[in-house]
Amino acid sequence: MRILVVNPNTTRSMTDKAAEAARTVAGHGTEIVTATARMGPASIEGHYDGALALPGLLLEIAAAQRVDAAVIACFDDTGLDAARSLAAFPVLGLCESALVTAGFLAQRFTVVTTLERSRVLLENLIRHYGFGGRARVRAADIPVLELEDPASGALGKLRWQIELALAEDSAEAIVLGCAGMADLAHALQLEYGVPVVDGVSAAVKQAEALVAQHLTTSKRGSYVTPLAKTYVGAMVEFSPNGM
Amino acid sequence: MRILVVNPNTTRSMTDKAAEAARTVAGHGTEIVTATARMGPASIEGHYDGALALPGLLLEIAAAQRVDAAVIACFDDTGLDAARSLAAFPVLGLCESALVTAGFLAQRFTVVTTLERSRVLLENLIRHYGFGGRARVRAADIPVLELEDPASGALGKLRWQIELALAEDSAEAIVLGCAGMADLAHALQLEYGVPVVDGVSAAVKQAEALVAQHLTTSKRGSYVTPLAKTYVGAMVEFSPNGM
Amino acid sequence: MRILVVNPNTTRSMTDKAAEAARTVAGHGTEIVTATARMGPASIEGHYDGALALPGLLLEIAAAQRVDAAVIACFDDTGLDAARSLAAFPVLGLCESALVTAGFLAQRFTVVTTLERSRVLLENLIRHYGFGGRARVRAADIPVLELEDPASGALGKLRWQIELALAEDSAEAIVLGCAGMADLAHALQLEYGVPVVDGVSAAVKQAEALVAQHLTTSKRGSYVTPLAKTYVGAMVEFSPNGM
Amino acid sequence: MRILVVNPNTTRSMTDKAAEAARTVAGHGTEIVTATARMGPASIEGHYDGALALPGLLLEIAAAQRVDAAVIACFDDTGLDAARSLAAFPVLGLCESALVTAGFLAQRFTVVTTLERSRVLLENLIRHYGFGGRARVRAADIPVLELEDPASGALGKLRWQIELALAEDSAEAIVLGCAGMADLAHALQLEYGVPVVDGVSAAVKQAEALVAQHLTTSKRGSYVTPLAKTYVGAMVEFSPNGM
Amino acid sequence: MRILVVNPNTTRSMTDKAAEAARTVAGHGTEIVTATARMGPASIEGHYDGALALPGLLLEIAAAQRVDAAVIACFDDTGLDAARSLAAFPVLGLCESALVTAGFLAQRFTVVTTLERSRVLLENLIRHYGFGGRARVRAADIPVLELEDPASGALGKLRWQIELALAEDSAEAIVLGCAGMADLAHALQLEYGVPVVDGVSAAVKQAEALVAQHLTTSKRGSYVTPLAKTYVGAMVEFSPNGM
Amino acid sequence: MRILVVNPNTTRSMTDKAAEAARTVAGHGTEIVTATARMGPASIEGHYDGALALPGLLLEIAAAQRVDAAVIACFDDTGLDAARSLAAFPVLGLCESALVTAGFLAQRFTVVTTLERSRVLLENLIRHYGFGGRARVRAADIPVLELEDPASGALGKLRWQIELALAEDSAEAIVLGCAGMADLAHALQLEYGVPVVDGVSAAVKQAEALVAQHLTTSKRGSYVTPLAKTYVGAMVEFSPNGM
Repeated sequence: MRILVVNPNTTRSMTDKAAEAARTVAGHGTEIVTATARMGPASIEGHYDGALALPGLLLEIAAAQRVDAAVIACFDDTGLDAARSLAAFPVLGLCESALVTAGFLAQRFTVVTTLERSRVLLENLIRHYGFGGRARVRAADIPVLELEDPASGALGKLRWQIELALAEDSAEAIVLGCAGMADLAHALQLEYGVPVVDGVSAAVKQAEALVAQHLTTSKRGSYVTPLAKTYVGAMVEFSPNGM
Repeated sequence: MRILVVNPNTTRSMTDKAAEAARTVAGHGTEIVTATARMGPASIEGHYDGALALPGLLLEIAAAQRVDAAVIACFDDTGLDAARSLAAFPVLGLCESALVTAGFLAQRFTVVTTLERSRVLLENLIRHYGFGGRARVRAADIPVLELEDPASGALGKLRWQIELALAEDSAEAIVLGCAGMADLAHALQLEYGVPVVDGVSAAVKQAEALVAQHLTTSKRGSYVTPLAKTYVGAMVEFSPNGM
Repeated sequence: MRILVVNPNTTRSMTDKAAEAARTVAGHGTEIVTATARMGPASIEGHYDGALALPGLLLEIAAAQRVDAAVIACFDDTGLDAARSLAAFPVLGLCESALVTAGFLAQRFTVVTTLERSRVLLENLIRHYGFGGRARVRAADIPVLELEDPASGALGKLRWQIELALAEDSAEAIVLGCAGMADLAHALQLEYGVPVVDGVSAAVKQAEALVAQHLTTSKRGSYVTPLAKTYVGAMVEFSPNGM
Repeated sequence: MRILVVNPNTTRSMTDKAAEAARTVAGHGTEIVTATARMGPASIEGHYDGALALPGLLLEIAAAQRVDAAVIACFDDTGLDAARSLAAFPVLGLCESALVTAGFLAQRFTVVTTLERSRVLLENLIRHYGFGGRARVRAADIPVLELEDPASGALGKLRWQIELALAEDSAEAIVLGCAGMADLAHALQLEYGVPVVDGVSAAVKQAEALVAQHLTTSKRGSYVTPLAKTYVGAMVEFSPNGM
Repeated sequence: MRILVVNPNTTRSMTDKAAEAARTVAGHGTEIVTATARMGPASIEGHYDGALALPGLLLEIAAAQRVDAAVIACFDDTGLDAARSLAAFPVLGLCESALVTAGFLAQRFTVVTTLERSRVLLENLIRHYGFGGRARVRAADIPVLELEDPASGALGKLRWQIELALAEDSAEAIVLGCAGMADLAHALQLEYGVPVVDGVSAAVKQAEALVAQHLTTSKRGSYVTPLAKTYVGAMVEFSPNGM
Repeated sequence: MRILVVNPNTTRSMTDKAAEAARTVAGHGTEIVTATARMGPASIEGHYDGALALPGLLLEIAAAQRVDAAVIACFDDTGLDAARSLAAFPVLGLCESALVTAGFLAQRFTVVTTLERSRVLLENLIRHYGFGGRARVRAADIPVLELEDPASGALGKLRWQIELALAEDSAEAIVLGCAGMADLAHALQLEYGVPVVDGVSAAVKQAEALVAQHLTTSKRGSYVTPLAKTYVGAMVEFSPNGM
């Protein structure tokens, strides 16, 4: 099967990192293909970036060819509902996938994300997905693009928040709350001796699971196909008429 | 004071209708100015339209001059969090404003919206705003643009759902769940003898209330100003650098 | 329009302070009239005072003449449901009004109230109004009447709790949880650089908003007019028969 | 031990009925004493009556002599928090007691109350007590005082709602939602073959249970003793100073 | 009446301690009889022990003769739902009984249990019983059987957690979260001046209350009698056929 | 990898059916091995059966050799927490796995189970897993073992409940709430045109996903390894000492 990993921001090095995480866990016979948004923000940090990333993301979803499932490689699950409405194949988000994965391993866990501006946004997502009583969020004060720079000290800040999560939240597992942390999960799991969940890996495996079960997004109710209508301006090219 | 009513879809007749509702309730000294999205969908029905409406909406928010507050004239509260992050003035959504208004008048009430595809989306908003145990949603099976056509039979379908809400939900008040219904609230209130809340009116009065109290969106935490960063392509013109 | 500000305790200086806050934010054409309970406690601190304040409060509501809306000037929303049942005009409480006002400005905020004995009572109100996941409560250890005495050190205690709210609760806004703090909101907002919401101001603007929209309490269901029946003793004079 | 059953309305026949239910279940060595409010409404139906009943109720609580516990014989739990603050002995409400009793017997149950005006009020109490996902409320359209009149047809209406609860709510048990129904529980339990819980009986047994365990209301936090202060007018005689 | 106190672990000294607590609060005319599981773990600490204790517990429930009610003397409410399905008499658990008892006395309280491994398990029970917003759990780091040994220092650890609960949780009451602490409640209540609830005592009084009201588990819905079917192996002797 | 599918009831034909479903979706390189409980009930219908199935289930978990993950093939998630505590490999339940799978495909869905006695039990599980606002449960009135008999009419009853779920619950997807229905999912999905999720398939894919990510149950907190202690009687052979 072919799984599309879409990076909704325009930074290609983050696409590459997500693709590498995806390929590490992908099953036999799974091909990982990637796309990077061609318009929008260089990283997604908070509500404004998330909103501006949507057309670029949906354009890639609409343009996807011979794909069995897609993963939106951003922990905010930006545009997930819109992408599910648009696509004929299942679409997975990192946050939702990582939460349910951690939920199989631990009763209580902590999501460590980048900036404080994303903390409440993730808390609200956690409640929306039904994990309100089980998961907390901590921000490590790391701008997303700093994760691309080994000299930034980002790893130290991340480790500090994991240690606080274990000591103060009684966390039983850790979820890494940014696609840009995908390469760190394995080493942190070995270091701390608790499960450390990476959202890219989790979402790829969920995508494979749905495809293997011949399951895709329901087109009844919430995710019904968009109506044919006029879309003015830059977005016209991915009107549902053109699907 | 000047309040901007932004229509996030591209249909000017809906902007005009919202403006009329806004002017009807506006206080002495309040000037209502309007903007219509210049790109995006002709109406917002479901997740996909909502996502595509965001750049057009945020462009108008970013371009607003000498405005004291803004109202996003769509009941889905499309882009509300992003607009609050972007703007230096308070921004109100129709759903949030209408829910709190109905909450002062009734313990239990029903939102009547247009299409089934918006029903669960509004249920989720209602829970997010804390009204999960108090408000229900009914869809009247009316495409939004049909509300612009008096011959469409839309009013009859709407009245039927109001009657069901009173009979089966024990609704104590009704909320009209679409900006395009703003002109109907007064007559329906007289007909059914229960409060009928229109979101445009509710949001305009909330905007006035905040301005009179010298209150605006907190720039600490959730709605912190976007970071300066590269935005590629069509969206570059409303990067926060240009604010 | 005429808005009645009713102080449900018997301390006239608190009525005057609430009236001043009300007049500061009232719109053009709004007349603020006041009433002070003629029987009941000198201040309302906890469940017992709240219960004993009810007849005095309802007497003033029942006696109101040519009034378009009423505000109950106590942050505990004492008697709000009963007053809504009794009155033909809308009735606003400080807590409900302040919470929804803060909700337009911030995702997370903290209510700072007077005494520890009111803390859990306010937490329960906050849950009832649907803000359970968004708002916390802190008590500043200030007896209500001390707020009337500039030499009491009350302001210092209040500022200390605001600072804790910002540091430990990650509060994005502050709500002043007592009618007697109405005069402090503006200066505290300037000092701390976050929105500071006063309940009296918030409730007056909500009252104006409802009147401008021709909305009043639903008389269907929860707030139906009281039945005509025998009321023995001191309360007979404001039986609903006499309305 | 001596348990005081206080009727917060002024109708003595309802006091007598509650006393009879209380004596039927009281343990060996328990003496049931009664009090009827000397001022206030003849029956409590909705928010307004509940508010006006408070001074009459608290007067009886304050006047209680050599009592080990008190039961407020009204299903709305009118004044329960204030009475707990005032009294040195434990105070039980019918609704809270009946809900926890039913909770030991059934996962899902239905409260059948008198008038529609009490339905939402009881729903809110049910949520407050933590039974929001387990209990429903039905109103039988019976004015409270009609329960005192055998010719009123009240029993037939009550039976009809019980049958609907069993058929449509999948109720596993029934709670009678009015003190005036206390005499009917036993026969209805025999007729329908499911547990039928009466609030007066439930509260009396909870009172005995607390006394036997040497437990009384915590005076730390929520129910701390009222502060000594001025109470003007009719209520002065039961100021906490006089306790 | 006869109340069976069943210890679901195999340690007889814990049965004796529970029986003593039960007899101390039992009413006139109540006979306490005991049973100790004949197979299963020596103490119940966490999910695994709880699961393995079930057959031994259900065997004693099935074998009970001329019993009016049963109390399962373990704070985890191990097997409570299964026992309610099996038995023709009411069955009480310590956690559920203690929570509702504390709920009559305090708005906020803390459960102090033995080991960290039981903390989340109890948090989940607390939510299930509807006390999620009112009760916290603290673990005192005491293996259950250490409570049987006066020289173990267990009391000191327990007192330390009570002091933290009062200081940091603003607890208004304490619940002792282990059957093995039953003998300590009275002294701790005197020492700390807040209600201290023991689960064994609470459950025995609830059992008496239900019997006095002629109430037993509903056999409609959740707790319907088990179907007659084949049970292979060690458990065959307490098949429902043999009841 | 090797995945163990354990049937916690003693009916081998159900094990075989679950194994077949498991093998149908298993990935390349996954070997499905099975175990059937050697003691306990022939089918699990309600709380009592669930409790009695635990030792037989845990015995198979403890005896598992060279297994990478286990699936408990019962929709009640019987013994899931205990098995997670016991095993060194991840353990999946059908209900949890099916709910999260459906959650990726639909906002609202309905679980169709066998008997009414399991309905509330599943409702409680659904709340525990955080799907309380999204999923409903319907019982088709089919004894579990009837699913093994093609002549029983069970399929007709199941289809009837699916049709009601689509019409009355606005279900966007269906979850089959019994391991014995695993063979029906595919045909029902084709017939009704909405996703139909089978728990066995869902759990097997989740097991593969966890193994591929090198994730297993956290041994910190809730699922810590059982303490070494005395286990008397039939259960002694799978004491954790012997692991």
